[in-house]
Amino acid sequence: MEKKIITISREFGSGGRTIGRLIAQKLNIPFYDSELVKQISLESGFAPKFVEEHGEHSPGNSLFSYAFAPQGVPGVMNGLSTADFLWNIQCSVILQIADQGPCVIVGRNADYILKDRADVLNVFVHADKEFRAERIVRLYGNSEKTPSARLQEKDKRRRVNYQHYTGRTWGNAENYHVCLDSGVLGVENCADIIVDIISKSK
Amino acid sequence: MEKKIITISREFGSGGRTIGRLIAQKLNIPFYDSELVKQISLESGFAPKFVEEHGEHSPGNSLFSYAFAPQGVPGVMNGLSTADFLWNIQCSVILQIADQGPCVIVGRNADYILKDRADVLNVFVHADKEFRAERIVRLYGNSEKTPSARLQEKDKRRRVNYQHYTGRTWGNAENYHVCLDSGVLGVENCADIIVDIISKSK
Repeated sequence: MEKKIITISREFGSGGRTIGRLIAQKLNIPFYDSELVKQISLESGFAPKFVEEHGEHSPGNSLFSYAFAPQGVPGVMNGLSTADFLWNIQCSVILQIADQGPCVIVGRNADYILKDRADVLNVFVHADKEFRAERIVRLYGNSEKTPSARLQEKDKRRRVNYQHYTGRTWGNAENYHVCLDSGVLGVENCADIIVDIISKSK
Repeated sequence: MEKKIITISREFGSGGRTIGRLIAQKLNIPFYDSELVKQISLESGFAPKFVEEHGEHSPGNSLFSYAFAPQGVPGVMNGLSTADFLWNIQCSVILQIADQGPCVIVGRNADYILKDRADVLNVFVHADKEFRAERIVRLYGNSEKTPSARLQEKDKRRRVNYQHYTGRTWGNAENYHVCLDSGVLGVENCADIIVDIISKSK
């Protein structure tokens, strides 16, 4: 079966986003990451920064999670929590994007959202903590938290979000068609491996 | 870092053993599967069939697990349970094999046993239950148990054994450098993907 759509799930700092961008460039197909955030923001009424911060994170407690109804769209949440409302919009946007043709989608549980399509290749990118810690400091600079704490916090939020909305275990090989250790294989090489797999599926 | 040794961990029926054999053929390097069983049998004094059945399986309860001391080698188990004794021999044989040069090793927690070597590529092969059920009936025939029960039982025993001796979760992407879904990618293709990765690491 020809694979046209590539979803990239990734540990924070593993280079998954870069790998996704490289794949999209090499295959000359659209790349959805910040573009996806913009579309979800547009459809939900939430600010892009809010979507960016909450779209892949833990659903939060129920009291807090009703406090951010989008401005100018009163009543549209239909009693859903902010997280669940955002999840519904996210599903709808990702399904629409996939219908438009070949693309690369990074994050946002797209592997699960597109599980009924046979033309999707689901990829998971991971690496050991040292590789990722060095990378996040180099790319995003230092913060008041240690690199190790930043990795742990972000991965935990992604894991909880994935588990909550999919019922699956994040990082379990069974959920993905290809899992790659970018620390050992190299970021560029990971992109080439996926491009080869896609090219051979045609 | 050049990868010379390939370990293949696999779900039962996923074609991991066939993939390993194909990789070994294509790279013209030794393939250890039944050969490994023979060597462990020779060093441990256990019959090959016993090693085959217990080397990757759950450690068993302590009462039962002292009942199979090898014939002709009284006292060599030094108070270890049968499973622990077999594990020690297994580690020693796998470390020796790795020292001898490039090879493919299927199963027996070789990924963990060789974790201190930088020239090892750890691969995990999995596939959905339908693909594996069809494959085990085609290759190994029917038995009194359903294919689904056979898959579940064998995978559970491998999982428990891995967890017990390595402290890691079997099938967690983080433990392996490459995980592949052989049902979606195809058995031959999986072998080619690994051969390409090995060739590029040189």
